[in-house]
Amino acid sequence: MSRPLTIALDVMGGDVGPDVVIPAALSMAGDDLSLILVGPEETVRAKLAEYGGAGRSGVSIRHAPQTVGMDELPSQALRLKKHSSMRVAINLVKSGEADACVSAGNTGALMATARYVLKTLPGIDRPAICTALPTVHGHVHVLDLGANVDSKAKHLLQFALMGSVLASAVDGLERPRVGLLNVGAEEIKGNEQVKQAAQLLAESDLNYVGFVEGDGIYLDPLEVVVCDGFVGNISLKASEGVAKLVRHFIRTEFQRSWWTRLAGLVAYPVLRAFARRIDPRRYNGASLLGLQGIVIKSHGGADELAFANAIQIARLAVENRVIPRIEKHLTALQAEREVL
Amino acid sequence: MSRPLTIALDVMGGDVGPDVVIPAALSMAGDDLSLILVGPEETVRAKLAEYGGAGRSGVSIRHAPQTVGMDELPSQALRLKKHSSMRVAINLVKSGEADACVSAGNTGALMATARYVLKTLPGIDRPAICTALPTVHGHVHVLDLGANVDSKAKHLLQFALMGSVLASAVDGLERPRVGLLNVGAEEIKGNEQVKQAAQLLAESDLNYVGFVEGDGIYLDPLEVVVCDGFVGNISLKASEGVAKLVRHFIRTEFQRSWWTRLAGLVAYPVLRAFARRIDPRRYNGASLLGLQGIVIKSHGGADELAFANAIQIARLAVENRVIPRIEKHLTALQAEREVL
Repeated sequence: MSRPLTIALDVMGGDVGPDVVIPAALSMAGDDLSLILVGPEETVRAKLAEYGGAGRSGVSIRHAPQTVGMDELPSQALRLKKHSSMRVAINLVKSGEADACVSAGNTGALMATARYVLKTLPGIDRPAICTALPTVHGHVHVLDLGANVDSKAKHLLQFALMGSVLASAVDGLERPRVGLLNVGAEEIKGNEQVKQAAQLLAESDLNYVGFVEGDGIYLDPLEVVVCDGFVGNISLKASEGVAKLVRHFIRTEFQRSWWTRLAGLVAYPVLRAFARRIDPRRYNGASLLGLQGIVIKSHGGADELAFANAIQIARLAVENRVIPRIEKHLTALQAEREVL
Repeated sequence: MSRPLTIALDVMGGDVGPDVVIPAALSMAGDDLSLILVGPEETVRAKLAEYGGAGRSGVSIRHAPQTVGMDELPSQALRLKKHSSMRVAINLVKSGEADACVSAGNTGALMATARYVLKTLPGIDRPAICTALPTVHGHVHVLDLGANVDSKAKHLLQFALMGSVLASAVDGLERPRVGLLNVGAEEIKGNEQVKQAAQLLAESDLNYVGFVEGDGIYLDPLEVVVCDGFVGNISLKASEGVAKLVRHFIRTEFQRSWWTRLAGLVAYPVLRAFARRIDPRRYNGASLLGLQGIVIKSHGGADELAFANAIQIARLAVENRVIPRIEKHLTALQAEREVL
């Protein structure tokens, strides 16, 4: 008698908290998806009633009196917030009551807590943050996006392995193509870390296709792009900045005169379809890969639609058995090394 | 009796060479701007005639028999191509015959040659590549964009000083606001290099406003953004990739059906005005800052309009006395240090 796929949600995480998480949960819960709302019981119960979800099947509440602040130091959250909604949600994954958890709480605290509670997989030194980004070919899994700011070559190899398994599992690909993010300058091509990582990747059994420049993230035919968290985080945010700049310019141009406003009205459905394609909410939900459990980080500013997307990503990771697959790949890798 | 402002152009640089450089030169040359076309004399003369520029005042030819390939190693170009169009153009700056030079040739070779021939300014260890990028507020000067892939904190300080002087000189700003590119993660905010640089910047007399995240390049009210060349190059190219992805999506959406095509026709003038605003050609022309001479790098794939823009950037740098101003600032800085 198996329970349905179960995901724990940190109700208090993010800039908004319950007013995003609870409606998102109600839009997703069903016979095949059970959601545990983790937070201060009274608050959660009241909000659940407010959104018409009281007594709804597939939704339960787990009490957690504390909240981790969005600017709270990870070390402090770890030490002082043992009963936070974030921590309790992760505990549910550890105990097996939940198959995954989703939090829009602060990244540093989530990573530190998840790492402390769940531990990393054997063979993984550091977890990485991975998300899918839109490309001209579909989408690409990029990691690390900010968990590690001083990665060594061997960490980049581990990221490549995890990204590759994720792309295989979620997108059903045999041998995902893996690129290593680098600068385009000749001769001094990249820093030492990247040069060494390139060698490790070339020697691995991954489908490593070589260096990729910044624009290649969005334009090259690749399924996985690997980089250190410092450059990954900055590139991702720079990309978001450009997308916002583009929206700003489009809006400005269409509001220039009565004529351009009219043109805007005519083009509105098309522009909306376009906006949907670059809508970051559709890509919300980053995996904290390398842990002994599935933890999905939602953007702090996520709305209901975006948070629901993060829940969907957690569900896909469970259904596609991402963690056992990474474990299997790591075991094979280690066995191979011992043989050598 | 002073000569007009004079700029040397590397005719053979870039993916196209003369067919871009010569028409661009002819569109810019005049009584107040003299251009020296540097390249194999016969080729240049023939192309000049082809574009109707034979005997045109404000345009002269300087013979340089060799060409640096776009994939040629910098060390090789430096050793074997002493008579290349790139090298001779830089020599003209060194000798004072030209006030600046512009090349669309390979970045590594251009940087190595310019550094070898012109030397860095006293107090500058490494030159940096700086370009202006569009923002919601206007534009921002970003450096380094790829000359240095392992910058130390003191180099980031030097970049900040040079970028600040450039923004002052070119945009007429009293105290340009300087941001330091960093990740948004809490606690472990950035790597060691960035933490140390933040301290140096805070202690300097620059108008340092603190960390800026990737999206802040395009959204924050700043005039200068400083970063290591590895992250700068990748972020810039990622941004270009997103801009291309956006154009791809817009095109796709407007070509979906007869109705969206019609909407596209109506919206065309507005979309064109928008495309103009994110047109990278309008931002073509990066300064190699920190050298004892003005060297502007054009994108290798630049067309006539883009190359003309790079010439304009060289002209502005000369007219606004960018190099003497950087020198003055450096001298003041050193005097201050000696006093302390």
